[in-house]
Parts: sequence; structure tokens; C-alpha cells
Amino acid sequence: MLLPPFAQSNSSAVLCCGSVARFVESRVRVRYKETDQMGIAHHSNYVVWFEIGRTDLCRASGIPYTEIERRGRILVVVEIGCRYLLPFRYDDEVVIRTSASQAASRLMRFEYELVDAEGTVHATGFSRHVWLDRETRKPVIADTDVLAAFADWMR
Amino acid sequence: MLLPPFAQSNSSAVLCCGSVARFVESRVRVRYKETDQMGIAHHSNYVVWFEIGRTDLCRASGIPYTEIERRGRILVVVEIGCRYLLPFRYDDEVVIRTSASQAASRLMRFEYELVDAEGTVHATGFSRHVWLDRETRKPVIADTDVLAAFADWMR
Amino acid sequence: MLLPPFAQSNSSAVLCCGSVARFVESRVRVRYKETDQMGIAHHSNYVVWFEIGRTDLCRASGIPYTEIERRGRILVVVEIGCRYLLPFRYDDEVVIRTSASQAASRLMRFEYELVDAEGTVHATGFSRHVWLDRETRKPVIADTDVLAAFADWMR
Amino acid sequence: MLLPPFAQSNSSAVLCCGSVARFVESRVRVRYKETDQMGIAHHSNYVVWFEIGRTDLCRASGIPYTEIERRGRILVVVEIGCRYLLPFRYDDEVVIRTSASQAASRLMRFEYELVDAEGTVHATGFSRHVWLDRETRKPVIADTDVLAAFADWMR
Repeated sequence: MLLPPFAQSNSSAVLCCGSVARFVESRVRVRYKETDQMGIAHHSNYVVWFEIGRTDLCRASGIPYTEIERRGRILVVVEIGCRYLLPFRYDDEVVIRTSASQAASRLMRFEYELVDAEGTVHATGFSRHVWLDRETRKPVIADTDVLAAFADWMR
Repeated sequence: MLLPPFAQSNSSAVLCCGSVARFVESRVRVRYKETDQMGIAHHSNYVVWFEIGRTDLCRASGIPYTEIERRGRILVVVEIGCRYLLPFRYDDEVVIRTSASQAASRLMRFEYELVDAEGTVHATGFSRHVWLDRETRKPVIADTDVLAAFADWMR
Repeated sequence: MLLPPFAQSNSSAVLCCGSVARFVESRVRVRYKETDQMGIAHHSNYVVWFEIGRTDLCRASGIPYTEIERRGRILVVVEIGCRYLLPFRYDDEVVIRTSASQAASRLMRFEYELVDAEGTVHATGFSRHVWLDRETRKPVIADTDVLAAFADWMR
Repeated sequence: MLLPPFAQSNSSAVLCCGSVARFVESRVRVRYKETDQMGIAHHSNYVVWFEIGRTDLCRASGIPYTEIERRGRILVVVEIGCRYLLPFRYDDEVVIRTSASQAASRLMRFEYELVDAEGTVHATGFSRHVWLDRETRKPVIADTDVLAAFADWMR
């Protein structure tokens, strides 16, 4: 199933929700700027690609992250982890598979898999987040409709 | 005219070559990482988006930049310029229109226009490059087939 | 003349204001992340280094950029240009020399020179900016004390 | 104890090796480019700051990372983790405390603490690395003098 054209423009996200895997798929290409002198994509970019996956998962859930901020909430990263198995090189296609593993009123957790065009896994990772009020930066309880939307992408 | 699927994965490049404009069109979305505390895309990202445009123009010309480096040449930036007219915001679609304005044996020059989904111009820019040998880093004469390929995208 | 210790922590800025040159000097080292697969610092980083120079020039003028934003103004980039003469490599020291060439109520212009530890020029550049109100994003007239502060660093 | 001037230019690294803590201290300031529209330093930059810490630890050990690559080895990241406790803001000073927790012939592990000017911890993290041959990209045994040098910074 393809997202509508507008949602695809960055990364042609596709939604996969069979009996096993429930994730949103985003596609980017390794930018020359993202390479380093080892001739591979620098490891810090993986964290940025994870964020693209989260953005596409929010959009796919029907509540774009821009809408979350419009409501006065922000989703702040409190922990991140990444395991690097195989490198990506300039102009390689990176497929980002994003799912939610926790969608609670206080905490969110996302899981990521970065695979190549052939489906080989190059990296796995996760991120944990808390809901904060955009102005006060104090913890808040997530809106129930937002949590319900994420629930569709729970793995 | 659409590029084959593989070429689209990053940016769904389209080729526009009417009687007036001859350019390659790439599409990216502003990443959260690319915003700054003004709430807009940081101006240094425009230079990176230009590079995505060059990559897609090379691919569209039939000689991907990876092929240029495989032949032992690199295309090194010697000058860059950008005028900023309107900001881009998080998750905005950025359409990069890239054309070549000089394709000579010693020097290349590319022109860029960044427009939004409605076609409004947000920024214009250019870059100038020299051909260097990848090993010696000395100036070299560009391959004639490469120059011929670029010639199709001259404006 | 050295800046007080706090001001040096990022880049050990020094102020040079002889009869010929009036500039603020900042020092950074090329980060591994800033290299690309050509084995040199990617050209987009120069634009970021220019910004470090502006930050240090503001601080040296007695009005840190944080103070400018606290007053409800932002200094938005409207044009940038850079000429690349010699590359920088990983772990190289980059000396950023920043001066103001225009400090007007509507427009600011800064000039940059990137030199190595021996004083050889690797790149030159400029940036032009307008003063905007932080909330409305409409053009505003710069505060006279801010302009007066910059005047000390006019070249 | 201060490092010689050359080692300080980026980050004025200091070496701390009391009975409890043995780490190298680097200092950077948050760049405007490193902020995002939440008004804080984007979480991906922490991974880049860790790398600055590693670079300074290598230099402090007497074997700069440039020397490691000159010998034909690269130190490739295989895992990274970061916990975010408090944000950093534009122009804040970030003190990076880096130590080694494993220096083996096959594997390296580094630990990081990011503190502010007052010593409050804002983030902690780690990275794991393998030694590869720069050309073949196959695992290699680390040089004994390199491992011995790191041993001084084991925690």
C-alpha cells in the first residue's frame, strides 16, 4: 500500500502491516555530504535517518509531527541506541523501517531497521522519548487520539 | 518524463527540458535536524541540497557521479553562492531545479533554483567546479563523453 | 589581545585591530564528521564556520548574539558566497577571521577569511543579513547600540 | 594539567587522572547550526561531540587518530548509545569527558559524559569499535603500542 503522493516526496514511505511486521518504510539516498573520509556514511547520520522514519510514521498514523507541535507538545529524545552491522556508501539507497514498541501517556519508544534495496539489514536501533509541553518544557500526558494513532504501528 | 524508479528513490527527480527551461528536478523534505532555533531550515543546508541536485543531474545525464569517481576524477567545488528569498520550514517539500551553465574541459558551473510545491522560488544559487585527478589532486581535462552528457542539461 | 577565558572555550577568539586588519579570530579543528569521501572537509562546513566567526564577533563587540535574540531581533541570512582555494583535512586547525563590512540599520555584511595555522588563506567569503523582528518576521531597524558595537569591527 | 597549545586549539582538552576519574576533557560551544526548532542542540550532535572526545583522547595518548589511519588501520563504530538528561542551548559550553573502558586487540569501548561549565551532567554515552584494515576493511589486531597508549585512559 502506497501513501498518497504528497507523503512520498521525501522518502516514498510505504506501510507494511502483515501478521509479522508492522512498520512504515522510508527511503533516502546517502548524500555526498553524509560520507566521511572512510568512504562510508558517517555513523551520526543514522540518528538523523531514524528521525525521518519517526516523521513518516507520524504522518502515516494520521497525525503529522507538525500537528503534535501545533497542539503545544514536543516529543523529546531521552535515549538512543544504534548497532552498525554493514556500512552504507554514497548514493546507496537506505530503507528505513520504523515501528513503535511503546506508546504510553508518558513515554514513547520507536524501533528502527535500516536495510538496503535487497533487504539486507545494515543497522538496527531504537529511541525513547517523553512528552513535554512546548512552552513550559514540563512532562505532560499525551493526547489519547495521538496514542491511539500510534497504536496502529505497534510491533 | 519520469526517471526510472531506482533514480527516484531519494528525490523523485524529473527532467524538464522544454524550449525555455532545461533542468533536473529533485525533491526533498526539510528534516527536523535541518531546522534551527529560528524555526526555519538552516541556510547551510541549501548548499547540501544543491549537491543533491548535482547528483541527480549527473544520474540523469547517464553518467552517475559514482562513475566519474570510478574513472579517477573528482569534481571539486571552487566557488559557491546562494541568495535566500523565502524560508523553508520543517517537513516542507523542497524542489531543487538544477541545470548546467558551463561544461568545459577544465570548469563546470551549475545553477540552482529552490522552489516550493506551488512553484514559488525560495532561493537561487550556483556552484563552480574544477576537474581533478582523484589520486594526484592535479587539474585534468574532463572526458569528452562526460561533457557531452552534461551538454544536454545546459541552460 | 586575548578574550576572557569564557569567550575562548569554543575557539579561542582573538581580536586583531591594527591599522590594516580589524577582525576577530576564531579557531576550530576539522571534525571527522566534517570530512567527506574526497578526504577533505566538505564545502558546506565553511558556511557553518563563518557562523562561528559571526558569533565570536558579536561576543567580542560586547553584544552576544543571544542578547540580540533576547531583545526580539534575529539576523537572517539573505546571501552567502564562498571561494575555495585550498582544502582543509581532518584535524587541521582552521583559523576564521571575521570582520564587518557593512553595519546599517537594515543590512549587515560580514567578510570571512579561513587561514591555516601558518596563515595561508584557504578560503574567503561573505554573508549579507537583514534585521527581522523575531515574532513577526518583518524587517526592523537595528538598535543603535548594537550597530555602534559592530562599528568597531568594520574593515 | 593542560595539553600543549597545539592540542588545545579545538577544544582546550585537559587531562584528568586522579584516583577515581581518568578522562580527557574537551570543550566546544553549541553552534547555531546545531540547534533545532525546539531551541536546543539536536540530539544527533552528541554523537559528533563524542567523536571529538575520542579524537582528543587519541591525541592525549600520544597517538593521534591521523597516525592510526596513516598506519593503515581504521577504528569503525559498531555500536553507540546515549542518554539525554538535560538539554544544551545555543552558545552553551559543552564539556566532553572521554575515557576508555575497553582497549583490546579486537575491540575498543569508550565512555562519555557531557557536562556544563558548572559540572552538571547533561548526557552520558558510550561507543564500541572494531579495528579494521583501511584497505581490505577486514578485522585486524591492534598495534600493541596503540593499545598500551590507550591503557593510560582506562577507567
